[in-house]
Parts: sequence; C-alpha cells; structure tokens
Amino acid sequence: MPQKILVIGASGLIGSAVADALEARGHRVIRASRSTGEHVDIRDADSIAALLQRVGPMDAVVSAVGSVPFKPVSELTLEDFRAGFDDKTLGQISVATIAASHLRDGGSVTVTTGILDGRPVPTGAAASVANGALNAYVRAAAPYLPRGLRINAISPNVLLEAPGYHASFPGFTPVAAADVARAYVDVIEGDETGTVISV
Amino acid sequence: MPQKILVIGASGLIGSAVADALEARGHRVIRASRSTGEHVDIRDADSIAALLQRVGPMDAVVSAVGSVPFKPVSELTLEDFRAGFDDKTLGQISVATIAASHLRDGGSVTVTTGILDGRPVPTGAAASVANGALNAYVRAAAPYLPRGLRINAISPNVLLEAPGYHASFPGFTPVAAADVARAYVDVIEGDETGTVISV
Repeated sequence: MPQKILVIGASGLIGSAVADALEARGHRVIRASRSTGEHVDIRDADSIAALLQRVGPMDAVVSAVGSVPFKPVSELTLEDFRAGFDDKTLGQISVATIAASHLRDGGSVTVTTGILDGRPVPTGAAASVANGALNAYVRAAAPYLPRGLRINAISPNVLLEAPGYHASFPGFTPVAAADVARAYVDVIEGDETGTVISV
Repeated sequence: MPQKILVIGASGLIGSAVADALEARGHRVIRASRSTGEHVDIRDADSIAALLQRVGPMDAVVSAVGSVPFKPVSELTLEDFRAGFDDKTLGQISVATIAASHLRDGGSVTVTTGILDGRPVPTGAAASVANGALNAYVRAAAPYLPRGLRINAISPNVLLEAPGYHASFPGFTPVAAADVARAYVDVIEGDETGTVISV
C-alpha cells in the first residue's frame, strides 16, 4: 500500500537514495533538508514541528541527518562528544519525538546511525558515541511508543559514493547508497520495531 | 601484583563493594566521591585533574558514578537525555581522558554503564542512551589509548541492595553488589581492553 513519507536529509547521499527508492516503490515522498526542498533544521525543535504541521499527516518519517566531529581519540574534547551527541543523536531523537505526535496510527520512524557503533577507527570515537546512544534509544523507546508506532535505525557502512571517507575506514567494504536505501524501504514497508539494521 | 587503585564513587553501593573487593585482594585503594573520602565531582574536569594530581600515579582508576533521569519515554525531554549524557557518559569519559595522562604505563580505567543498554524498561530510555553511548566509547577508544593503557566497562544488572529500583525492573534478576564487584576485580587484574562486561 503506498505511503506518504517525509524524508529529512533528502539532499544527502543517503536521504536522496532513500527518497528515490521509496518513489520507485510507488510511495509519495516529501523531501526536506536544511538546503533544498521543505526547510528543516533538526537542531531546532520548532523547525521540526513546523515542518510536520506544514506537510500534514504522514505514514512514515525518515531521518538521514547528523554530523559528528572526526578527530584522533587523544584530541577529542568533551565539547566534541557533546557536539556529536547534540546533532546526530538528540537531533534525531527530536525528530522521532515530534513525529510520534504527527504520524498516522501504525506509522514508522527510521533514523540513521552508522557502522562506527560496532567497529572502531582512529578518528571515530565521537561518532561511535553518537551512534551507540541513538541505537540504544531506538531499542529502549520502541516498546513504549503509542498507537502502534514503530521506530528502527539503519546503521550504514561507509558509502561507495563518499570516497573522501574511504581512507579513514581501511578494511571496511564501502556500500552503495542504493543498497543502503533498500534497508530503509524494507523497514518502512515491514513490521519490525526497535531494531538496528546494519548495511 | 598489588596495584594502587583509585575508586571514584566509593560511597555508592557499587563503588564501596568494588573498593572492599580490591582491598580483600591485597590492592591499595584510595576512595573518592562527592561526599566522603577524597573529594571529586566528575562534572568538573578541574576537580578530576586535581584529584589525580593529589593522589599521585595510579595503576588503575575505577569510575562507578553517574545519574540519569528516569521517566516514561513520552515524558522524557531533550534536556533529560542531555542531562543523563552529560553526567553518566561525559562525566566518565572525562575521568577516562584525564586518567589516561596520570596512569602508570599499562594501567587501566574501568567505567560503569548498566543493563538498560540492552533491555528496555518503561522509564529507562535516557539511561539506555547514556549507557549505550559510554559502551560505544569504550569499544571505540580502547584500541587507540597510549602506553598500553586499557579501558573496559562493567554493565551491572539492578542491585539486590537497591530494592527501590526493583519495581522498575520487573523480570530482571537482581545481582548482589559483591558479585558485580568481582567483575571489576577481574578486568583490573586481567588483560582485556575495549570490552563491556554484563553482570
């Protein structure tokens, strides 16, 4: 059954691939980002609430946003960890929280974490912390969402289309954004909740 | 071989059990907390640095501190998540970071997370987030610590000696603080690093 789906971060590599894949499946997609399409800034709860008010009731919300400082562990300050947490973790928790009061019954939220929760790289500790925190939120919040709402996280590997990151991820096999997008489509059309899916 | 070990949070149920267990094994223990023994406030990096300066070179530092708001998921605000992260996660990352420049070569840091990273309870999402973030830090930072330093996390179940929490953890089998303490002794005397040990 076609769904009406809001994709936040639709100007990014993952968000645009997810939006394309959802449209190819016959869903109606509304693209939002800081730069193009419907405007939203996930660091600003009012901006998220205004977006969800503007676009009307949705069946699903996808969040593919969040930035985190990359530095060697010995150079990461408490402010770096807090910056990554505020942006990637709390920004997406904010999307999930606000979406929960705007989604149709049985709707879903899908957030984006990343492989660094599970595998370390020399400059990735703040990303690991942000991802680990958000994965924990998904597992912890899912059983207690109202109205049959679901929440899941997709944890992508480094992207084939982002060669600038490949040197920082030696030993990781890059994955195409289109393959990552399939995981989003799968959880949005599926029934699972509280899961973290590594791609 | 007896070690000189600083236990931060030594006035708490876990910290005091760990300090007792380490002394019973012949180690020299220095007890620190906000209220008794050597004074320290993990929210204040200067306070941690002053403590480590004061007590001199250590073979191991244990951190058994951190508080997190407990509320139903629908009532948790972004500020609640941030408060738990700032205290339990960043407070203990701060201990680990500062300890890394004061420990003897090959020394260890052991931090405290908790079972809510893996199992949800209705009021535990902020605790899950704080624990998930800190577990991720331990796995991410361990390979890159200098001078053979090690870091591990102990993730305790709800404590037998904290009956006030038992109603919030139905279905969990409470564990005695003395049994939790054995896990700390084991990683401090052992060789592992980057591990999260559930007790």
